[in-house]
Amino acid sequence: MDTVIEKQTDAPLSADDSAAVIEKLARKARAAQHVLAGMSDDAKADALRAAAASLRDHAAEILAANAKDIDAAKERGLSSAMIDRLKLDEDRLEGIAAAVENVADLPDPVGQVIDRSERPNGLQFARVRVPVGVIGIIYESRPNVPADAATLCVRAGNAALLRGGSEAVHSNRAINKALAEGLAKGGIPEGAVQLIPTQDRAAVGAMLKAAGLIDMIVPRGGKSLVARVQDEALVPVLAHLDGINHTYVHASADPLMAEEIALNAKLRRTGVCGAMETLLIDKAYPKAEGVVKKLLDEGCEVRGDAAVQKLDERVKPASDEDWDTEYLEAIASVAMVGGMDDALDHIAAHSSGHTDAIVAADTDAVETFLNRVDSAIVMANASSQFADGGEFGLGAEIGIATGRLHARGPVALEGLTTYKWQVRGNGQTRP
Amino acid sequence: MDTVIEKQTDAPLSADDSAAVIEKLARKARAAQHVLAGMSDDAKADALRAAAASLRDHAAEILAANAKDIDAAKERGLSSAMIDRLKLDEDRLEGIAAAVENVADLPDPVGQVIDRSERPNGLQFARVRVPVGVIGIIYESRPNVPADAATLCVRAGNAALLRGGSEAVHSNRAINKALAEGLAKGGIPEGAVQLIPTQDRAAVGAMLKAAGLIDMIVPRGGKSLVARVQDEALVPVLAHLDGINHTYVHASADPLMAEEIALNAKLRRTGVCGAMETLLIDKAYPKAEGVVKKLLDEGCEVRGDAAVQKLDERVKPASDEDWDTEYLEAIASVAMVGGMDDALDHIAAHSSGHTDAIVAADTDAVETFLNRVDSAIVMANASSQFADGGEFGLGAEIGIATGRLHARGPVALEGLTTYKWQVRGNGQTRP
Repeated sequence: MDTVIEKQTDAPLSADDSAAVIEKLARKARAAQHVLAGMSDDAKADALRAAAASLRDHAAEILAANAKDIDAAKERGLSSAMIDRLKLDEDRLEGIAAAVENVADLPDPVGQVIDRSERPNGLQFARVRVPVGVIGIIYESRPNVPADAATLCVRAGNAALLRGGSEAVHSNRAINKALAEGLAKGGIPEGAVQLIPTQDRAAVGAMLKAAGLIDMIVPRGGKSLVARVQDEALVPVLAHLDGINHTYVHASADPLMAEEIALNAKLRRTGVCGAMETLLIDKAYPKAEGVVKKLLDEGCEVRGDAAVQKLDERVKPASDEDWDTEYLEAIASVAMVGGMDDALDHIAAHSSGHTDAIVAADTDAVETFLNRVDSAIVMANASSQFADGGEFGLGAEIGIATGRLHARGPVALEGLTTYKWQVRGNGQTRP
Repeated sequence: MDTVIEKQTDAPLSADDSAAVIEKLARKARAAQHVLAGMSDDAKADALRAAAASLRDHAAEILAANAKDIDAAKERGLSSAMIDRLKLDEDRLEGIAAAVENVADLPDPVGQVIDRSERPNGLQFARVRVPVGVIGIIYESRPNVPADAATLCVRAGNAALLRGGSEAVHSNRAINKALAEGLAKGGIPEGAVQLIPTQDRAAVGAMLKAAGLIDMIVPRGGKSLVARVQDEALVPVLAHLDGINHTYVHASADPLMAEEIALNAKLRRTGVCGAMETLLIDKAYPKAEGVVKKLLDEGCEVRGDAAVQKLDERVKPASDEDWDTEYLEAIASVAMVGGMDDALDHIAAHSSGHTDAIVAADTDAVETFLNRVDSAIVMANASSQFADGGEFGLGAEIGIATGRLHARGPVALEGLTTYKWQVRGNGQTRP
């Protein structure tokens, strides 16, 4: 197996071989992580700045590698959208390097004291943030992911094991090499950021099963990747599958605000996970026709229930399936609801737990909605397109999680830490 | 399937049937949990007090049911230790009821604001604690577990699905019935605490696979139960498998303190997960002989490395396996280490990540140890037997977790919550 591990390979692997490769890489990652865990805030930040410089120094190499991927993608007839996602140029690469520096500038969460207490027997307790450990990142073709995700992991003292999509194999290897060189200059051990050296899909399966060796998996990519990861993983996963997000226009909503928020939530960028997919209009809201007309006028297809179909002849009938569909396009499902309880029931039945919003002037309605809707992000009088770590003031994000444990919503550095209990005594024994 | 669900049964089930039973119970639990999530602190506390009263009211019924289990256990030839664990009497039942009242008195974590911030665009962010959701408790024979665990779940707004061991089937059913009656009086829906109505082991498998239906599994029992749960579960698990806990006597340790802590950590109660299993003695600590002699004099078997064997002729040689063994008996493995780095290396290689301790007067040594040892609980100058939620001031515990995500160490009410982001705007749209 050693030859497989020492260099990048395109050879197929058995499941057993994959497990052995992943185990060896994960143990190397764990050892590196122990060193990282002891590094100071400044040392980690400086190493990340060196990694950014190294990305710039190796720009020609990285762009040449990326050109190979683009050529291969064209040969394989990938869509122009996919090719555009894969493509790097000097500006995009500079953006990646700048993002690494941005992460270096974020405050280090490691060592922060969450809380302290003292017991009558004099024992002193403190919960202190520590790195999670070894984090597996499984991603598709965007070449910014390895740099973004790996540097967030390292900033919080974690080792990263990266598994990228085969379309970007040359870009990934070149970027990883440049990153590793920079991190090494900054004193971060080689094992801290490793690219899985095989493109065999069995390696992904081995990562998902590597409980105890890998502490957390973050999938970055389309729905089929996330679904596979969630279905197969024995390692905890931080992810969201769908963003079936609702905006509920309450009877008390200001009509201008309701229209602006509905348009922005649906149409600003239709392909992002925070985009609104379903609009719920209270039957007591007097301007239902206006908000539906605005959506239609802006080129959005509207699929409505019977009541909504009566508002505008351009409205198409919604099928049962529409209420559970993430379009990621200029299509919205729109329903009239009988009031707050009806809206809450619809959301409980159909939301993916990502981001649900209300537009209402009535503060009681706002508070009821914010308390009762059980989604990772609940919003009042704002566009669901704000669902993003940067907009939340987190400086960056490794992803948005809709699971219920550990971290929810936009996940940044704090979500890449856990805590330990430090107990200080002066000789206490338990009676 | 309905007959299976409506009443308790001893009939065997297929895997498909089990999955259907668990799905139906979990959906009922989810619906009940939505009601619970909207209940006030006082309402939940009052319902728990009613549950405690109901346990007392049904004492005769519960003790009669328990007697049936004890008779069956004797017929099946269970050990007297197991029978003692299973046995209830009036005092023990009163203890269970009092523990339920104690949980009612704990502060409600739901609704607590973890942090707030405001962005330049005026959006206001708050992270607010909310219940985890539906929690599965899989336990063995101790009849206090259903009451303890279920009431902690309910206090934090969660629904509980309980699966008890077959030895305690009659006790479990009687206790659950009494609890449910009390909770119902307090307005908590029936689905909030449910006992899985089949003793078929396939039902446990179905719980472990019920990702999305059950949000978290807490196993309560012996190592083989916990190992099965950890190996098979697709649902996140909060647990610890081993407590292979170390106490490191540093060169600077006060000899009297070192001896008292070593004796207490090992011998106060040898069967608890916080008990010390391995003692590491710094070769520069001048009183190594004394601490080993004390352990031996108190009836502890000592298995030592070559250096420790020279200290006292009663020391037996330790095998490689000893350093990875949780004895849970009056046996300790003891090694001499070359200094702090050596101790840290030994702990990194052999600790189960539960509770590791140092005895040292040197504060630099203390801080190095507390920062570098990567266990859920790290202690200085105190006995590892303090590893317990009550001793940490948490009021109760549902268990001790050695996993790295969500919650570590003693887990009480806060660990049974997660958070959501509440975002309040006044019409913001994203540019």
